[in-house]
Amino acid sequence: MIPTSRRVAAVAPFLAMDVMTAAAARERRGEGVVHMEVGQPSAPAPRPVIEAARVALERGRVPYTEALGLPALRERIARDYRTRYGVAVAPERVVVTTGSSAGFILAFLSLFDAGARVGVPQPGYPAYRSILAALDLVPAPMVLRPEDRFAPTAALLRATHAAEPLSGVLVMSPANPSGTVIVPEALRDLCAAARSLGLPFISDEIYHGLGYGVPTACALQFDPDAVVINSFSKYHCMTGWRIGWMVVPEVLVRPVERLAQNLYISAPYLSQIGALAAFDAQEELDAVRDGYARNRAILLDAFPGLGLGRTHPVDGAFYLYADVADLTNDASAFCRRMLDEAGVAATPGLDFDRTDGAHHVRFSFAGSEADCIEAVARLRGWLR
Amino acid sequence: MIPTSRRVAAVAPFLAMDVMTAAAARERRGEGVVHMEVGQPSAPAPRPVIEAARVALERGRVPYTEALGLPALRERIARDYRTRYGVAVAPERVVVTTGSSAGFILAFLSLFDAGARVGVPQPGYPAYRSILAALDLVPAPMVLRPEDRFAPTAALLRATHAAEPLSGVLVMSPANPSGTVIVPEALRDLCAAARSLGLPFISDEIYHGLGYGVPTACALQFDPDAVVINSFSKYHCMTGWRIGWMVVPEVLVRPVERLAQNLYISAPYLSQIGALAAFDAQEELDAVRDGYARNRAILLDAFPGLGLGRTHPVDGAFYLYADVADLTNDASAFCRRMLDEAGVAATPGLDFDRTDGAHHVRFSFAGSEADCIEAVARLRGWLR
Repeated sequence: MIPTSRRVAAVAPFLAMDVMTAAAARERRGEGVVHMEVGQPSAPAPRPVIEAARVALERGRVPYTEALGLPALRERIARDYRTRYGVAVAPERVVVTTGSSAGFILAFLSLFDAGARVGVPQPGYPAYRSILAALDLVPAPMVLRPEDRFAPTAALLRATHAAEPLSGVLVMSPANPSGTVIVPEALRDLCAAARSLGLPFISDEIYHGLGYGVPTACALQFDPDAVVINSFSKYHCMTGWRIGWMVVPEVLVRPVERLAQNLYISAPYLSQIGALAAFDAQEELDAVRDGYARNRAILLDAFPGLGLGRTHPVDGAFYLYADVADLTNDASAFCRRMLDEAGVAATPGLDFDRTDGAHHVRFSFAGSEADCIEAVARLRGWLR
Repeated sequence: MIPTSRRVAAVAPFLAMDVMTAAAARERRGEGVVHMEVGQPSAPAPRPVIEAARVALERGRVPYTEALGLPALRERIARDYRTRYGVAVAPERVVVTTGSSAGFILAFLSLFDAGARVGVPQPGYPAYRSILAALDLVPAPMVLRPEDRFAPTAALLRATHAAEPLSGVLVMSPANPSGTVIVPEALRDLCAAARSLGLPFISDEIYHGLGYGVPTACALQFDPDAVVINSFSKYHCMTGWRIGWMVVPEVLVRPVERLAQNLYISAPYLSQIGALAAFDAQEELDAVRDGYARNRAILLDAFPGLGLGRTHPVDGAFYLYADVADLTNDASAFCRRMLDEAGVAATPGLDFDRTDGAHHVRFSFAGSEADCIEAVARLRGWLR
């Protein structure tokens, strides 16, 4: 009999993926589903990415790369920090990773030892909690408050640390599931608070580039030692390519390299080649983002009339996180019925928040405009 | 000031990759290098793989997949166990991973808690030690003996466990760096010993398909609960695609799925598509393997005359692990000079063995026949 570890028992399943499975089963039965359950752009990777990968395939060589990534890609990413944020980043500090997933693992392992408490926003991306737990680290929820527009603040960080000392903090802006952007002044204050408490600051910036009017800052503008995690999955529409990056302070470069050599060898080659070309696709990608903006407007216009008007801010990303307490206190059952009866797949809030999540639902609007219109029509009939 | 973790300090760099870097620098200076330092086939991925990936790229959709992998790929892998080893494996027990690297992490995290001791062969693949250390597990070296042809045995496992209790054991056949195959009877005895000691048995079979006459068995033939780890990197020539798989006992499927959802989301899509097509390329891949057999013969013929005749068995894989005690007791310096003066890159044994590795060197013969001939000529001149 094979025993399983205690730490794996602490890892919760991703409900979003279970919803995906149920939705796929419904589709196999020939019944239509509007997919709003998963944070995946429906747009394909931009043309230059496809073309670059095609050319590389034709050459036929698909080798390991340096553990930290192809030098040309690291340089191109570094250059983007100057263009986009006015921040100087040496290419040596850029680490190409197998999606942001690898970035979290590399950051956590290089910064923290077993038992360390790491502040994470609640609601928040569920993999933070799960990865921390799997690595014997302790997620310390920083409960976001409506009076702060559901953004983490310096005061919240200080209070969390005062309740029980932290070893580090992780924030995300624009956020999943809330869509909240931490405005530049607030991010500056958060960075300053972390520094004064001696805490490494990890900034998940995977939804950068997907904002709807609220200015978005990079943590490196305020803390040159911040560990920034990002990915080509969202703005660049490259989910299944599994390619992302980190920017780390100089002192972490070699430790992260040693870990990456042993834990990953390297990120997938074709994806690195594709990612390099993604920088030539800004116009195409901005058009995709403009589509999200239209989808967002459709939902924000229609949802209040459906009883889904109490949402977190939708400053960025492609999620609408709705408080459905007026409709149910069991969002999981609500989502199951919504899929079964209305053919709309969305994710119950318990993925993101073990407590208040029971009366929240996350709707992704990364699909097409037609999907959003159809979802509104179906929900109008169903919720009547 | 950013503190780094204690556990990252326990992770050694991969010397093979440092040699690769030095070799690349030499090449940039316009000086030729024969590459025998890295375990990477010089042959490209087979044609059906390239073609399948090209078609998928043209369709443009490169999405996340199920965390455990595309169902068609899991089914195809499962089917191969019946064909190749006569073992029935349900497709549900197959987990598609981002290279074997992800397989080790998923196996270790799902089976072991912090502090657990895991038996690993010495010499052995260095990432075993490093991944275990990064995850707060303890690698327990099982020191291989010339009288056992450098293969782990049931007696060695029992002795290691008796010295200090283990929580599991990992073996590899054909092995890196030694090339040793654990013959079927010995593997059966090892599986039985692990079972009688109550230890989960992890079998790294990444070099299966690359054997030179010695019969190679799969651990599942002797222990249906074995955790088997494999990859498309070696026999299938798909290193930079980062795609592999595990077979796990039923009880581990859901724990591994939860971990995979959170730690990886999914393996790269194009690589999964390519891997599925790799099963149609056996003829092409067997021709590549026949090339390794010729390379092996060239080295085994010439090396004794060069003072490099004391090698571990070269039953499989594409490595020759030579005891160079007659030439040096500092294999790292020896390899540096060999690169500088002869233009031949090989890996010092300390990667694989912290003690006896100081007088061993690993030569990879995964390159071309011309490379092997040239290496012999250069070494003949240099060692004279």
